[in-house]
Amino acid sequence: MATFTPISRVGEFGLINLIKNITDIQTDSPNLKSDLLMGISDDAAVFKPTADKVQIFTTDAMVEGVHFDLTYSSMQHLGWKAMASNISDIAAMGGEPRYALITLCLPQKISVEMVEEFYTGAVFACKKYNTLIAGGDTTAASGNMIISVSLIGEADSQKLVYRNGAKVGDLVCVSGTLGTSHAGLKVLMREKRNFLEKSESFSPNLEPYKPALEKYLMPKPRLDIAKLLTNEVKINSLIDVSDGLASEVHHICRNSGVGAEIWEHNIPIDNIGRNIAEEFSENIIDYALYGGEEYELLFTLTDENYAKLESLTSDVTILGRIVDASKGIYFIREQGEREELTPRGWDHFKENN
Amino acid sequence: MATFTPISRVGEFGLINLIKNITDIQTDSPNLKSDLLMGISDDAAVFKPTADKVQIFTTDAMVEGVHFDLTYSSMQHLGWKAMASNISDIAAMGGEPRYALITLCLPQKISVEMVEEFYTGAVFACKKYNTLIAGGDTTAASGNMIISVSLIGEADSQKLVYRNGAKVGDLVCVSGTLGTSHAGLKVLMREKRNFLEKSESFSPNLEPYKPALEKYLMPKPRLDIAKLLTNEVKINSLIDVSDGLASEVHHICRNSGVGAEIWEHNIPIDNIGRNIAEEFSENIIDYALYGGEEYELLFTLTDENYAKLESLTSDVTILGRIVDASKGIYFIREQGEREELTPRGWDHFKENN
Repeated sequence: MATFTPISRVGEFGLINLIKNITDIQTDSPNLKSDLLMGISDDAAVFKPTADKVQIFTTDAMVEGVHFDLTYSSMQHLGWKAMASNISDIAAMGGEPRYALITLCLPQKISVEMVEEFYTGAVFACKKYNTLIAGGDTTAASGNMIISVSLIGEADSQKLVYRNGAKVGDLVCVSGTLGTSHAGLKVLMREKRNFLEKSESFSPNLEPYKPALEKYLMPKPRLDIAKLLTNEVKINSLIDVSDGLASEVHHICRNSGVGAEIWEHNIPIDNIGRNIAEEFSENIIDYALYGGEEYELLFTLTDENYAKLESLTSDVTILGRIVDASKGIYFIREQGEREELTPRGWDHFKENN
Repeated sequence: MATFTPISRVGEFGLINLIKNITDIQTDSPNLKSDLLMGISDDAAVFKPTADKVQIFTTDAMVEGVHFDLTYSSMQHLGWKAMASNISDIAAMGGEPRYALITLCLPQKISVEMVEEFYTGAVFACKKYNTLIAGGDTTAASGNMIISVSLIGEADSQKLVYRNGAKVGDLVCVSGTLGTSHAGLKVLMREKRNFLEKSESFSPNLEPYKPALEKYLMPKPRLDIAKLLTNEVKINSLIDVSDGLASEVHHICRNSGVGAEIWEHNIPIDNIGRNIAEEFSENIIDYALYGGEEYELLFTLTDENYAKLESLTSDVTILGRIVDASKGIYFIREQGEREELTPRGWDHFKENN
């Protein structure tokens, strides 16, 4: 068994020192380091914004029992994912991440070692995506563990892309593949049930599912695609796919005052996602529409700009087209039937969830 | 009884619209509004920093059952206090607040109406302290309610004041009075016990305790004093008193590599705090040293600068003096006994709390 040191043994200040040590080594970016005038160890962090850049400010929380389950998410994965979901929000504005504050609300079951692992995962993501942890807050919690990250990024103001700029006639496109993250979650939930039923002799072979588990546990924010979209072509709207494709299409349409049609035939699915959905006798298209937590980028642009983009990457797919608001938001099935696309997504306040 | 609309009835997006409506009216500051390029309704907020200013970035969380109790804190008070504690962190760097993101993790017992009240209180603080709510995150929670606010402020870099600049020979000073917030909390805890015991015929007269309850429930971040300290005189170190005087003196000493002596005789106490402590047969000095949540400012400066400050405000008091690190951190009792000042403060991870 892993060592379990209760947080009460080191106290809040002991914990802060430990976090400081882990985060000190987090990145080699000299700019981010020299612009950070004060990091962990004062009432607040202080940094210099880059001249002429606008600041992008986001926050995203993860609640145990709602967004994650400690029986199948390791603390390192949680640290990674908490950073990744916030970095993805910055990518979805056309920006680049800079400084993060991490708040952890920790019930007694969480040990000092677990907090260290959490930060190890967070720092791993920070190094990969050029971000510095500049502070935060740690507090006791009486219920479940909660992680809340806030992140500041930057962009040239002319490179910002909002949800509200989609134009009638735009192509609707997405990066990567969809549905795979939810497929990974389905496998993890099944293995948890198996574990609870069988307990002792439990040693599942998860190797075949690995890419799907990784997509769920360690999603990759698409800063690479965001950079192409903002530097090499002109796109009209942009959002990240955190709540399922259906929800995100609705966000773009509502904010832009337009409608859309999305073509089932075009939805990018990978083999691992398809195979897992089949194992569960479910439809991978439903995972793509309603599953969420993909952290791919959904965007709209003209045909001309798409032609330019296509020559630069093979990692984007045309999903549909923006139409007049009066035409609504429709999903066109492979056989041509038109269904209204409902944004049920993953709304954790709904009673049926 | 107040109306109780479950959040599941309006859903996450209904809740966001409601929050948008309340926060839209939050301030009249034209600068903050025109510099906010994107507020609530995209993946992130976007704002323009003021040219040549450094950015101050802080976050502070409040956990039900650890930091607050819904039986005696109204949602409006919580909204105020969540903003105030973050604004106080910005004041404690010598800065001014600008944009806030609010994250609420809401268990089922929290209604739509309660969220509205929370935001009403938060907006009230924002109007008073010239801050805009620019976004956030709302999520379900399975356990207790959690509030996490992050806040961006600004300062001229030459006006920043850290914890680490205290010099041997500096006077140690504090704004306002100490111990009163903890006195207010003691009254509220007693009334809760009385209520649970007597229930029906319960109608306490809290009028005589009002200033103490207000200090606990609606603390005032000292932006007024911070402005004096950074514009009119030169101070060497600054921190806000959130965890009790003893803890904060230790923070300044540790970060500055100095010692201090604090004189009991000088600690500023008000009548209401003193009377409440007497009612509980306790010592108001203990409340001041270890009680916390005052949000007054603790700072150090030379005698010359203090003389200048004294002519500008009567709301600061000399508490002691910075000494060499080798002399330690001592509390000098009224009769002259020297005791080591222990930073036990309010460490909610400690087992004895």
